[in-house]
Amino acid sequence: MDKILRINMGADGGPEIKEDPLGDYAGLGGRGLTSMIVGKEVPPSCHPLGEDNKLVIAPGLLSGTIASMSGRISVGCKSPLTGGIKESNSGGQGAQVLARLGYAAIVLEGKPKDDTLYKILINKDGVKIEADNSLKMLGNYDLVEKLRAAYGEKVACISIGPAGEMKLSAASVAFTDMEQRPTRHAGRGGVGAVMGSKGVKAIILDDTDMKMRPARDPEKFKAANKEFVAGLKKHPVTGEGLPAFGTNVLTNVLNEAGGYPTLNFSKGQFEGAGKISGETQAALENSRGGEGSATHGCHRGCVIRCSGTFYDKNGRFLTKQPEYETVWAHGGNCGIDDIDAIAMMDRMDDDFGVDTIEMGATIAVAMEAGLAKFGDAQGAINLLKEVGKGTPLGRILGNGAAVTGRVFGVERVPVVKGQAMPAYDPRAVQGMGVTYATTTMGADHTAGYAVATNILGVGGSVDPLKPEGQIELSRNLQIATAAIDSTGMCLFIAFAVLDQPETFQALIDLLNAFYGLEMTGDDVVALGKKILTTERDFNVRAGFTSEHDRLPDFFHKEKLPPHNITFMVTDEELDEVFNW
Amino acid sequence: MDKILRINMGADGGPEIKEDPLGDYAGLGGRGLTSMIVGKEVPPSCHPLGEDNKLVIAPGLLSGTIASMSGRISVGCKSPLTGGIKESNSGGQGAQVLARLGYAAIVLEGKPKDDTLYKILINKDGVKIEADNSLKMLGNYDLVEKLRAAYGEKVACISIGPAGEMKLSAASVAFTDMEQRPTRHAGRGGVGAVMGSKGVKAIILDDTDMKMRPARDPEKFKAANKEFVAGLKKHPVTGEGLPAFGTNVLTNVLNEAGGYPTLNFSKGQFEGAGKISGETQAALENSRGGEGSATHGCHRGCVIRCSGTFYDKNGRFLTKQPEYETVWAHGGNCGIDDIDAIAMMDRMDDDFGVDTIEMGATIAVAMEAGLAKFGDAQGAINLLKEVGKGTPLGRILGNGAAVTGRVFGVERVPVVKGQAMPAYDPRAVQGMGVTYATTTMGADHTAGYAVATNILGVGGSVDPLKPEGQIELSRNLQIATAAIDSTGMCLFIAFAVLDQPETFQALIDLLNAFYGLEMTGDDVVALGKKILTTERDFNVRAGFTSEHDRLPDFFHKEKLPPHNITFMVTDEELDEVFNW
Repeated sequence: MDKILRINMGADGGPEIKEDPLGDYAGLGGRGLTSMIVGKEVPPSCHPLGEDNKLVIAPGLLSGTIASMSGRISVGCKSPLTGGIKESNSGGQGAQVLARLGYAAIVLEGKPKDDTLYKILINKDGVKIEADNSLKMLGNYDLVEKLRAAYGEKVACISIGPAGEMKLSAASVAFTDMEQRPTRHAGRGGVGAVMGSKGVKAIILDDTDMKMRPARDPEKFKAANKEFVAGLKKHPVTGEGLPAFGTNVLTNVLNEAGGYPTLNFSKGQFEGAGKISGETQAALENSRGGEGSATHGCHRGCVIRCSGTFYDKNGRFLTKQPEYETVWAHGGNCGIDDIDAIAMMDRMDDDFGVDTIEMGATIAVAMEAGLAKFGDAQGAINLLKEVGKGTPLGRILGNGAAVTGRVFGVERVPVVKGQAMPAYDPRAVQGMGVTYATTTMGADHTAGYAVATNILGVGGSVDPLKPEGQIELSRNLQIATAAIDSTGMCLFIAFAVLDQPETFQALIDLLNAFYGLEMTGDDVVALGKKILTTERDFNVRAGFTSEHDRLPDFFHKEKLPPHNITFMVTDEELDEVFNW
Repeated sequence: MDKILRINMGADGGPEIKEDPLGDYAGLGGRGLTSMIVGKEVPPSCHPLGEDNKLVIAPGLLSGTIASMSGRISVGCKSPLTGGIKESNSGGQGAQVLARLGYAAIVLEGKPKDDTLYKILINKDGVKIEADNSLKMLGNYDLVEKLRAAYGEKVACISIGPAGEMKLSAASVAFTDMEQRPTRHAGRGGVGAVMGSKGVKAIILDDTDMKMRPARDPEKFKAANKEFVAGLKKHPVTGEGLPAFGTNVLTNVLNEAGGYPTLNFSKGQFEGAGKISGETQAALENSRGGEGSATHGCHRGCVIRCSGTFYDKNGRFLTKQPEYETVWAHGGNCGIDDIDAIAMMDRMDDDFGVDTIEMGATIAVAMEAGLAKFGDAQGAINLLKEVGKGTPLGRILGNGAAVTGRVFGVERVPVVKGQAMPAYDPRAVQGMGVTYATTTMGADHTAGYAVATNILGVGGSVDPLKPEGQIELSRNLQIATAAIDSTGMCLFIAFAVLDQPETFQALIDLLNAFYGLEMTGDDVVALGKKILTTERDFNVRAGFTSEHDRLPDFFHKEKLPPHNITFMVTDEELDEVFNW
């Protein structure tokens, strides 16, 4: 993992392959690497779909090793959705396989001269690029089926669906999971549109004959991993809650806390929550022969196993167990309590290649505009179908909530920097509001998951309904997250790392043992700050100001039931998040 | 004209009428007044369609007097198109009549509780507001017909078409002309959407029994007006060019200069220019019994008379003589050389209530996206029809070029701050590029019409193809324009004012004689600077930075034939425009 694969899709004689040493980027991985490359090489004022933007795909520092949980991959670029820098993070097999193939990053550059569609094959023999227009407008499921037939059952695929080809701002980059299904997505920020603008439909990764990456100090590495896994197993969130019911365990939790955004962020509790909760979902999945609990990771080496599989009424695979944010987006946020309809939309999103959060938020805005009624599951599915078909309406929706609100003249549009808010109302989880407002990414829960401390009591306790303490909380979480996102580690390790000093130490030991370093906790903090600073600098150069670090007006004006409060953190406080 | 009419459309018991003295706003009119009110009273971060935005309609300082050319009116608000401050300027009868009714401004505030549509009648007896849902979705032509039947042939109407009701960002506010036709529009920036968001379909102004506004020094005022008119008559542009062929006299001029943006700003000359030039148009209009030249002003008191009427093939009135920018937008920019088709689109724009410049630029972007072929007049008309129907495609287009580019993934979108560029390519008229980039309004030729000096040799001479001198030129024009836009004077007086010191003095004499002042040229400059400073301040607080004072990438990259040059003014130079 000491080289960068650069492919210039705009070269005169067709795509041009180059391998660069890491050089200045040595010691970086995942988000750290994508953000440094974008920050240094992409002109902030460029058009996101133009030749000057770059799509950077980077496994984490520990990906491709025996370290558990190290299978996350970062996709970075200038975002077509936000106009700022973007790192979108995904599970699936991509990180482990790409790392074992020796690449710290793939960088897609330039812009093709015509609309030829390409596939890229990377294996032990090198890199091959082929034009293949037979793949045009294939959904991710059909695409992967076709690639499986051609390249076998072991390859990992990175791909875009029709949404990416249409360059829609909600388009995702899909990563196949352990069953070679395109269920894991770098969903946020329209990274799929950038891949589409580069004319690349699929990257096929084959790590046959490639070895696990060796640590500098194998014994210490092994020991650290053992300690690390033990820490994850003993923490109640990673050892019990997530494995038992998956991420959707949060539906009941957030609903009880009054922070479950319902009917396009109109109230904080949803009557139908019980029908779509993780508990209900897991029981249903088990009853149909799917895997509802504790059996399924999204990538090799996962020990939390928060995922599962969702079978339809006839017992046939429909989709992976929909995540909490997806169930919320297509569920409560649209007033929908039909878990089968929600699972169907999850499948459609994965197939078209769009972000489930952005799509659910968008459909709710469309409902506010009168295009369907809140609670109308079939109406929501019909809207989503338009996206796959690429009709004018579908293209509006596929460009996300902000564009949809603009086109239909809707005022209540829950976005920051053009990106839709996820499943936590910032009025009832005020720390989350600080993260939404200030992160470089646009409204993004993963950028500084204050829910942990506001609601779950992890990493201390800060009252979710009050502004006090939220700035510091979000700041620290954003710094830690930027660092974790660089390791390839699943963010869910943070629960144990925040609460258990020995698990945090084990993570540092893993890095030190693998790379032969002597890092301390301070170095991790410094890395996080360096990444955030780079990202903020990009955004400033792209024209962002503190005015963009704000929630939409209605969070300050409309009181959220049942707590009947507004977002109370002041603008002046928000401007302190990055003053460390 | 010493009071402000404020109507709170969001009051609990229905619309609430209030009359305020001018107070702090004394001495201001037109753009000066709209920008000061918006700058002081509208929170820059508010949603443009929300309760906190205000729509300000203000005649100029000399409107409603015997001063010639004083019939321009300003419409201000936070723009739904740009997100910044907006002053959109129109001719028609509104300014003269509203001024004579004694109002310095109408301010529409608040947001109605439901979707009831209102009309407002203002006459000598006062102000009356009535709900009238029978007006819903009427085109401006049918609407005005209906209002004429109800209120007589002498009233002036200010109205929105279906586009304004749908809150589309290209929606205009229409003003009836001397023949009581809705042909004059505050087109730019989506001011019609803001009027729509206030629930106001029409304002009917009846100045029966109201007198001409009296000057402090009537004799001096009369003498100054005589000198002023003489100055306009003797200048070749206002005395000959504009009256003879209307604004469309510019087609041949710009085409010869290689600065006529053709096929979505791909080249600077259009083969079909001769077929749609002012000379051709005027001859055609005359041959059909319309008025092709020197006979028609858009408001009482106009002595330039640059307008005319366009009859269809059967000799029936179709639309007013389409202006140069309209003919360009729907013509050369889309590769269309069919003057009848262009006139038809002008009529449709006026009827739907959308900005002709934005719509033409949008259709060209749609053509670039493949929705119709360049040169396909019927295809363009069909696209425009969608806007009137309010289909999803129509709503995309009706939200302007930037949204259309975004939705269809088009990279070459000629906008600044979200507003489409008018009929002068910034590469071949570099001074215009400076104005487009830096004006507070988004790309707007009227904000600092460098064409005058770059192309027409008015106000000196600056080579249009070189960056030298453009900053100073644009700066001075922007300052002068902000001041002129406050007087109610048509901007076309600038040709004579720039070239003839005695005509400039006559303008100052008009103001001094009317208000009993002792202003000098320096005071006029100071007023212009004050307005620009207020507008810039609003935009900064709305989140604009110098990064928004830039042209899109492709003007720096693609060379424009026939001169084969790019836009060469540097970013550093652009940032000097407002350093005076």
